[in-house]
Amino acid sequence: MLEYFEGFGNTLGFGERPAIIVVDFINAFTDPSCQLGSDLSQQLQSTKELLTLARSYNIPIIFTTVEYEPHLVDGGLFVKKIPALTILKEGSHYCEIDTCLEKRDDEVLIKKKFASAFFGTSLSSMLTSLKVDTLLITGCTTSGCIRATAVDAMQYGLYGIVVEECVGDRSASAHKASLSDIHTKYGDVIKLEQVKDYMNHLGGKAHVPSSS
Amino acid sequence: MLEYFEGFGNTLGFGERPAIIVVDFINAFTDPSCQLGSDLSQQLQSTKELLTLARSYNIPIIFTTVEYEPHLVDGGLFVKKIPALTILKEGSHYCEIDTCLEKRDDEVLIKKKFASAFFGTSLSSMLTSLKVDTLLITGCTTSGCIRATAVDAMQYGLYGIVVEECVGDRSASAHKASLSDIHTKYGDVIKLEQVKDYMNHLGGKAHVPSSS
Amino acid sequence: MLEYFEGFGNTLGFGERPAIIVVDFINAFTDPSCQLGSDLSQQLQSTKELLTLARSYNIPIIFTTVEYEPHLVDGGLFVKKIPALTILKEGSHYCEIDTCLEKRDDEVLIKKKFASAFFGTSLSSMLTSLKVDTLLITGCTTSGCIRATAVDAMQYGLYGIVVEECVGDRSASAHKASLSDIHTKYGDVIKLEQVKDYMNHLGGKAHVPSSS
Amino acid sequence: MLEYFEGFGNTLGFGERPAIIVVDFINAFTDPSCQLGSDLSQQLQSTKELLTLARSYNIPIIFTTVEYEPHLVDGGLFVKKIPALTILKEGSHYCEIDTCLEKRDDEVLIKKKFASAFFGTSLSSMLTSLKVDTLLITGCTTSGCIRATAVDAMQYGLYGIVVEECVGDRSASAHKASLSDIHTKYGDVIKLEQVKDYMNHLGGKAHVPSSS
Repeated sequence: MLEYFEGFGNTLGFGERPAIIVVDFINAFTDPSCQLGSDLSQQLQSTKELLTLARSYNIPIIFTTVEYEPHLVDGGLFVKKIPALTILKEGSHYCEIDTCLEKRDDEVLIKKKFASAFFGTSLSSMLTSLKVDTLLITGCTTSGCIRATAVDAMQYGLYGIVVEECVGDRSASAHKASLSDIHTKYGDVIKLEQVKDYMNHLGGKAHVPSSS
Repeated sequence: MLEYFEGFGNTLGFGERPAIIVVDFINAFTDPSCQLGSDLSQQLQSTKELLTLARSYNIPIIFTTVEYEPHLVDGGLFVKKIPALTILKEGSHYCEIDTCLEKRDDEVLIKKKFASAFFGTSLSSMLTSLKVDTLLITGCTTSGCIRATAVDAMQYGLYGIVVEECVGDRSASAHKASLSDIHTKYGDVIKLEQVKDYMNHLGGKAHVPSSS
Repeated sequence: MLEYFEGFGNTLGFGERPAIIVVDFINAFTDPSCQLGSDLSQQLQSTKELLTLARSYNIPIIFTTVEYEPHLVDGGLFVKKIPALTILKEGSHYCEIDTCLEKRDDEVLIKKKFASAFFGTSLSSMLTSLKVDTLLITGCTTSGCIRATAVDAMQYGLYGIVVEECVGDRSASAHKASLSDIHTKYGDVIKLEQVKDYMNHLGGKAHVPSSS
Repeated sequence: MLEYFEGFGNTLGFGERPAIIVVDFINAFTDPSCQLGSDLSQQLQSTKELLTLARSYNIPIIFTTVEYEPHLVDGGLFVKKIPALTILKEGSHYCEIDTCLEKRDDEVLIKKKFASAFFGTSLSSMLTSLKVDTLLITGCTTSGCIRATAVDAMQYGLYGIVVEECVGDRSASAHKASLSDIHTKYGDVIKLEQVKDYMNHLGGKAHVPSSS
């Protein structure tokens, strides 16, 4: 089904020290009645499953949200290209992580302004100081912040792995096209079951030592 | 034809000081007999036309190439995901700008290692010191380095404008899907004729003063 | 007094569109009874004077603070190198801008984690979208976040101008050494009076058009 | 001798996977008859000693040079602030690594334009893909590119360790002031002997596995 090009799309596999990033599973995106939103209940469910396993192994979990100051200067041209983003004001219910994921206080929350979770944030720095080499990517939307984050994961030197059941998009065709491009050029697109096997296999070895 | 989502895809228009970026129109990508390549003769022709006009107005032109050291350490995981990239070794004919574009010695050449023309380069810095606010994007491939560059142009605070006739891809469907995503979320996708009108309209005012 | 090296330390002068950055004038640094703090009352006074003039011309003003999540993971190795930083927890009085500067709601607040105001923030992006070419640097400390910000201003393509009376440090010798290095290699160190002359000269032309 | 501030200047120690960066030990800086240069023969000698040991353990070694295109557009404001830099044109003898260090073809060469070895380069990406957590910093000048690189090493999440005998500056006072600031705020300043002990202690464990 996927177009195939010779010399592209090698499977890279997993590294030794994973972290999970949960990109923009905030109310604005998970509420289908919101302009930014769509029905992502299945993806939330799968992500919840992944997080539960990760927590049992102390694998670091990082959430992102998008939030702007009231004057929107920090939104630059992005909030002009996508006026629907302007509801994402600091303190708004829309910017909060969907409660179904039960984010804990000891899990990181990154506040970003643009598409990639790396851009204008200290994500890359944090992953380095945690000695993470593998970023398991979940969240929304596949053709937006997920793809931008997967491209950057590759560029920043990480194994960026998109967990297929854990990412979604308001457009089915854009979802499919981006998964194909990601797998061909940036990071492996892997089934949830296989990612869980990897985590179980790593087991205790995934712990980042407390001294670092 | 394009899916439409309310609150997305505003047209941003043009800024005051443009530069043109020509992404990866190097022999490896413009030679259809090469694994990385495809037939981009039309896109090269259109880009040539744009460059000729830009040169007449002294609008800055920046080319990119991809090149790696012989040991490929600088290619990180990218050259493992896409083994076809490994022909892009420093000094190779494959890394040279397609001669049909007649690159001049006073035009910038950026040597990048990854997808976005911004990543791991001083592109953003250079555009700021040239006081450029608008990046006219040409080159290849649409779903690869063009899209990554357009996403970053937005993130870096620039009007990133993809000149439709001047970008191409080895996959027609990936080309179409990425143009749609770019226009919806990151930068306007504009016809060559309209971009030429803009440049003619700016005329002498596009000159970046020599003192800067 | 200053060591002089031939071929270094040119005066660059001012660009056309300034913004002011006020780096870390937060309670933790302006309260001398705090480990991080020192007596910066003169510098605050001078900065207040600069801000008043800037506000009259609608020159953009950007404040920075440092704040960490309770778990401090986002502080990486920085909070281990400088344990005194660990008081900078989100929501703390220590992270608030010194009230004497009368920060307004329409002025930007950047929350950073490290030394440079550019690192892990969208400062560069914001300045580009505001078409700023000149960053007037105030705040503390000279040998810490001011210097790191001045080095980055140069690297990001901006005229980074340190306003001498508006920057301070807990160490007098470190203050002096960093001002000398900055002027020699990165950005002009200029007297407040001269910066005010520049702003008065620019006058209305410093306004960033509302359309951008 | 060093000013001491409570809550600053913790010793961080070493991580598990080191790399060595040799910053700008190029002819322009090591030739005292050049405007940019000074007598760094002792520092070169010490660095040579460190490199010899590192090579025996296959610890990655990364060199940097500074080089500009003939038109100097890529030098932005830096080459205007420091006109002495304009001799650093691509292909010039001045840009070549001092031969006394016997750089090998399998050792990385990063071409930078500004002060920090991280800025506008893929250094951070490369270190992540090599799973390096510790950057042993050598080269010149202490108050210029060394300090900027040490600040960035911290910001990017790495143990940035300045090897004291292996860094130098044309100004003795600037050298001393920057070493003090670095140790207080960014990275440990450590004696060559102690760094060699660390490398000997790591021994074979410092090898980056070939699969990564």
